[in-house]
Amino acid sequence: MALLPSWIDSANAPDHPFPLNNLPYGVFSVSDGALRCGTAIGERIVDLTGLEAANILRADPDADVLDALYWNDFMELGPKVWQSYRHMLQALLSISASEDIQETLTYFSLPLTEATLHLPFKVSEYTDFYAGEHHAVNVGTMFRGAENALPPNWRHMPIGYNGRASSVVVSGTAIRRPWGQLKSADHTQPAFLPSRRFDIELELGAIVGQASHGPLTVQEADDNIFGYVLLNDWSARDIQAWEYQPLGPFQAKATATSLSPWIVTKEALAPFRTHAPARQIALLEHLKDVGPMLYDIDLSVMMAPDGKAATSIARTNAKQLYYSSAQQLAHHSSSGCPMNVGDLLGSGTISGPHKPERGSLLELSWGGKEPLTLDTGEQRTFIEDGDTLTLSGAARGDGYTIGFGDCSGTVLPALSDPYER
Amino acid sequence: MALLPSWIDSANAPDHPFPLNNLPYGVFSVSDGALRCGTAIGERIVDLTGLEAANILRADPDADVLDALYWNDFMELGPKVWQSYRHMLQALLSISASEDIQETLTYFSLPLTEATLHLPFKVSEYTDFYAGEHHAVNVGTMFRGAENALPPNWRHMPIGYNGRASSVVVSGTAIRRPWGQLKSADHTQPAFLPSRRFDIELELGAIVGQASHGPLTVQEADDNIFGYVLLNDWSARDIQAWEYQPLGPFQAKATATSLSPWIVTKEALAPFRTHAPARQIALLEHLKDVGPMLYDIDLSVMMAPDGKAATSIARTNAKQLYYSSAQQLAHHSSSGCPMNVGDLLGSGTISGPHKPERGSLLELSWGGKEPLTLDTGEQRTFIEDGDTLTLSGAARGDGYTIGFGDCSGTVLPALSDPYER
Repeated sequence: MALLPSWIDSANAPDHPFPLNNLPYGVFSVSDGALRCGTAIGERIVDLTGLEAANILRADPDADVLDALYWNDFMELGPKVWQSYRHMLQALLSISASEDIQETLTYFSLPLTEATLHLPFKVSEYTDFYAGEHHAVNVGTMFRGAENALPPNWRHMPIGYNGRASSVVVSGTAIRRPWGQLKSADHTQPAFLPSRRFDIELELGAIVGQASHGPLTVQEADDNIFGYVLLNDWSARDIQAWEYQPLGPFQAKATATSLSPWIVTKEALAPFRTHAPARQIALLEHLKDVGPMLYDIDLSVMMAPDGKAATSIARTNAKQLYYSSAQQLAHHSSSGCPMNVGDLLGSGTISGPHKPERGSLLELSWGGKEPLTLDTGEQRTFIEDGDTLTLSGAARGDGYTIGFGDCSGTVLPALSDPYER
Repeated sequence: MALLPSWIDSANAPDHPFPLNNLPYGVFSVSDGALRCGTAIGERIVDLTGLEAANILRADPDADVLDALYWNDFMELGPKVWQSYRHMLQALLSISASEDIQETLTYFSLPLTEATLHLPFKVSEYTDFYAGEHHAVNVGTMFRGAENALPPNWRHMPIGYNGRASSVVVSGTAIRRPWGQLKSADHTQPAFLPSRRFDIELELGAIVGQASHGPLTVQEADDNIFGYVLLNDWSARDIQAWEYQPLGPFQAKATATSLSPWIVTKEALAPFRTHAPARQIALLEHLKDVGPMLYDIDLSVMMAPDGKAATSIARTNAKQLYYSSAQQLAHHSSSGCPMNVGDLLGSGTISGPHKPERGSLLELSWGGKEPLTLDTGEQRTFIEDGDTLTLSGAARGDGYTIGFGDCSGTVLPALSDPYER
């Protein structure tokens, strides 16, 4: 597929994240404060709530679905509407659109720079997987030794745990360093202290767009996914180390999870589908690969100390995952677990096979033993107060790019007394 | 405290679960299908949505809060309103209420037997703890040996994991035996099969009635709890054994969690507050006991094979917990995790020190090695198809009882092919 040209010139640059091929869905506000649904095209946002209210572009002829300040109602309409709406929207923004249409759409659009972006969907429940092989091997090696790095179940199912939907925030939200119960190996008793090993996890988030009640096949699961975002699962490694046995991570992952502000649709990513890696052990029938369901998306992490320039600290690709989001959703539903519109599935940390491709500071600094040196000359093992961490993602096509919009957050110092009122 | 007499005679029997001292909150429907909020008193339900609409009893003078078919909007009003509303309701149902009031309230009430009960609140998110010492020791002994039964963190914090809110159902809902990935020790490869070790967990569920954002003290946490239900966390032990390392239970606990239909308020349970057991290891300051926050509630489990009489298989008491729901909520919020109205906290399985006091079949049958003999003569290790499991709870006061209403579910056979459409 090649670039689809738009009458909005800025969208036609080959490296612009928001060409007509993308049309990601977001929620924005301008100075008047009202939240609206929109799409990004080049340097502009089109007000899709406005187009719906004006009966210019509707997903549902009988009911408003973009007046709810979330994309959930739209998602509920299902895959056929997702596709037909996208085709209508592409026609309105295509270079072949009439001058009348261009004039109308210009009226219903504004510069990206004037908009504040919000969470694009209401997160029903949030599940975080552990589906990146290199990450699982790295962490397993650090915690259990190279011999026992991958748990015996790992190549048979996408291991995951339920996260906390209430902690999900949009990119740009400041993240307060958490307090937690910590016990290092050289202490006999735990203490309640600010986390000293606060970390990122570079992930892709899949958004469930259709409810289900009962086991889904991998193909059905893929059909039910609406789109993808970048996801940073902020992780307090010292809280995690002390709490996670036997029931898994809990408070270590409950402070915040940041999402990039635009839902990149499954349709926009279709040209970048790619096959999962060769399976060393065959998957059980209900989890078997049934087509290319991973995506070739370049991912990167930047770290910027307070007021200073950012350093690129990691580059990898979403195709490094071992299990697709479709396989994760199929497994998630296998017990009969009801899934809902707006459920968010984090892929797990995405790391490549080489050191500069690791998607967490835990791996990059090898548990804090091998500090990174930033371009500013400063060293880092884990996050320091004031650091801004930014995830980026881009799928690169023939003369165009599908960008995600950054997923960024600045870490604020822990409160000196979290119980002071 | 003694029985508060009501003009509804049936409420005054010393062993009736719904005296004026109780006034639990539920959601019911009659044959016309509309859902309404109500309270149980003796053998009757009072239609509180109706009393609100008729301006006879209002929680909020300016807005309807009981028209939403859930108690969440009411909970949002906060503890002062919870108390003042309860006092007004008690006055209307007290034996000293005027004849006019009695006539009006009779008009707005109906026999319990005519109502179908529904989930009384919208579950925002669901967290399940592991706060029963005897259960943790029993399970730990089976899985890791007596020496390592309790994980090192267990006496320092209430260990918990996030569950799946979408799977929470009201008592009476049939439970379909799940399929899942299983691997027994004598197989080298897992298989996808119906669970063979499907189990119950006898728990108390606490309902968070106030939102928070930041660490709560134990006292603040106790203040934010609205009430309690009985909770059965259906658990597929074979799925759990294979999946739970390293991130905890996931699909084993995602099929369903059943709740008793009435929210028993914190106020109704106040006379039954009791202190936590002596601490072998002192708790950290932020989790310390600050008063009696456990409850003296007798609990029991009945098992009835398909079409046959039920056998009492376990009797214990909620005071056997090591951590209170308040301590669980304090820990849950300690990382800054935002908590919301309608969050549900399962206590973890409640077992007493003796064998007939164990709150799961895993413990009662000691991992399947010591089958139970039911009164019908049948033997059980885990649940068989057609079995009905019923949890009951009652706090016993001076001449009155605070009952919960049963938490019951019948297990249906697994689907022969869960992917057949």
